[in-house]
Amino acid sequence: MAKKNAAPTMKDVAQEAGVALGTVSKVVNGIPVGAAYQKKVEAAIKKLDYRVNSYAKGLKSNKTMTIAFLVPDTITPFFGRLTYHIHATLAKRGYRMLLCCTNAEAQLEQAYVDMAYQNKVDGIIMLSYSQKLQVPEGTPLVTIDRHLDPAVPCVSSDNFGGGQLAVRRLLKCGCKKLAYMSTSSPFANEVNKRGDGFLSSCTEAGVPYEMLRVYDGTPFQVFTDFLDQHTHDGALEFDGIFCVTDDLAFKVMTYLRSQGIRVPEDVQIIGYDGVVEFYTKTYACSTIVQPIDKIAEASVELILTEDWSKAPPLLSLPVTYAPGGTTKE
Amino acid sequence: MAKKNAAPTMKDVAQEAGVALGTVSKVVNGIPVGAAYQKKVEAAIKKLDYRVNSYAKGLKSNKTMTIAFLVPDTITPFFGRLTYHIHATLAKRGYRMLLCCTNAEAQLEQAYVDMAYQNKVDGIIMLSYSQKLQVPEGTPLVTIDRHLDPAVPCVSSDNFGGGQLAVRRLLKCGCKKLAYMSTSSPFANEVNKRGDGFLSSCTEAGVPYEMLRVYDGTPFQVFTDFLDQHTHDGALEFDGIFCVTDDLAFKVMTYLRSQGIRVPEDVQIIGYDGVVEFYTKTYACSTIVQPIDKIAEASVELILTEDWSKAPPLLSLPVTYAPGGTTKE
Repeated sequence: MAKKNAAPTMKDVAQEAGVALGTVSKVVNGIPVGAAYQKKVEAAIKKLDYRVNSYAKGLKSNKTMTIAFLVPDTITPFFGRLTYHIHATLAKRGYRMLLCCTNAEAQLEQAYVDMAYQNKVDGIIMLSYSQKLQVPEGTPLVTIDRHLDPAVPCVSSDNFGGGQLAVRRLLKCGCKKLAYMSTSSPFANEVNKRGDGFLSSCTEAGVPYEMLRVYDGTPFQVFTDFLDQHTHDGALEFDGIFCVTDDLAFKVMTYLRSQGIRVPEDVQIIGYDGVVEFYTKTYACSTIVQPIDKIAEASVELILTEDWSKAPPLLSLPVTYAPGGTTKE
Repeated sequence: MAKKNAAPTMKDVAQEAGVALGTVSKVVNGIPVGAAYQKKVEAAIKKLDYRVNSYAKGLKSNKTMTIAFLVPDTITPFFGRLTYHIHATLAKRGYRMLLCCTNAEAQLEQAYVDMAYQNKVDGIIMLSYSQKLQVPEGTPLVTIDRHLDPAVPCVSSDNFGGGQLAVRRLLKCGCKKLAYMSTSSPFANEVNKRGDGFLSSCTEAGVPYEMLRVYDGTPFQVFTDFLDQHTHDGALEFDGIFCVTDDLAFKVMTYLRSQGIRVPEDVQIIGYDGVVEFYTKTYACSTIVQPIDKIAEASVELILTEDWSKAPPLLSLPVTYAPGGTTKE
């Protein structure tokens, strides 16, 4: 009896409308459903005088239907695309996105994690560049490209396999001596595996190689010095270079060409990321392409999982190769 | 007396800590402040047992410290940059951003406006492409580039002035006959003023011109047909073209070059937007540059204004010209 007099719930609305609970949830959360369903649900809401109040909902069920997404910015094409696809996947599931741009600054990352916790979001998906991130217990967290803790699932592209794929492709294109150049975060992260894959494949194939791995923030001159040291009488020692990102590969290519070294005739270059320029729709270089949409879908799938105990520490997704003018094929 | 026994407020915390109310607000909302301030505020919060609960706060004061931002996507460089700068400006003021990507679809725009209203966000900043958007009363709204209603402030770049600037520049570069080509929304919007500015300056200067203005969704072939009709014996009638966006300008340039018409030797082209490609850091074409950071700041300033009655129907911000290889200077 008491139950009957209580304020109507979403379940009551679903029963009254003769639709699934998920349909009511979608309508209540402003997610489009078929016009006929929309009408039925709205009629039931009116009849029962069901009050939509997300704050009260947040207080009562501890569900806010909101996920915080921490990303350095939405200007870098890889981040802009990732943000779009994560938003789209969340929206399909009836969730909202609280966007938090961190500029990859440790203090801002921590501030946004704390904010997300205080606001009781249902979860956090983040790209992190901090060493000592304090994550309050009780907030589901999924990272992209970064290992915070074995208990925190990480989604990434197959970085190790991508490094192997780059070496295989350079060898197939006739390269005899390779180099790997990278800049990355000093903290445990997935991106470093690109170099590990490179190393593994060079060793396996018995091909000579050099590696230059530095931390983010290192001046680009360290790369040009390295290239200069390996240039003799205008000829570069390497005929194949794998770079940790397309951004670095493009800069290396531009520098080498300015020194009269031809790309791809004298040296072939492969980068990593695979986002085309917006206007020309061309890759900045030959590249290992990350499946951005799949990374987004997997991250959302994980953060909304019902059975958190089954979440893997790492979920890595397959990459592909795309020629972009800096290799012979 | 009753007041003294009530739950402590943010003001009490500020008084106890000896800091400004805004400083407490920042700490509570997870926005970084100086370490000394952070310490003082945290000590006061602990002493007074002040409870941070954004949901309760939302229920009580109707303030959520959250602004919804509706934008088609975060992939198009102009949108990705606008999103970043609006987020940064909101964050500086202690506000969060609920990101809503609409794909410029009317149904999604309406769904997100309704959602924002149901969730009692403190305001909505939006780019809209719908004809009949229903905006519930009581939610502050600012549009970018679109006139919804005289009561809704609109922020944009100086589109009319940008059209004039393009004509002046083409004439300065020696052009004798001009064309304007555009695709835009059929609804009252700021973007159409680019063509109006073009028309005004051509008329004023007494220079012959043609205009092709079509609606979004028109196949590109309509543009190539127009160009073909004005090409005689391999020579284009126009020697200067102003396009409504850099995207269109780049496509027009690519088509003309494929037809053996040289850019900028035979025809000079100016676009509008002014976002550089990510890797090459070059403009897609010579361009009228929008002040994206200023548009973002003005939109946030307006949505958070205390005195809504002083908000202007339109705030237009100055543009600049940048050469990008499709003009002689």
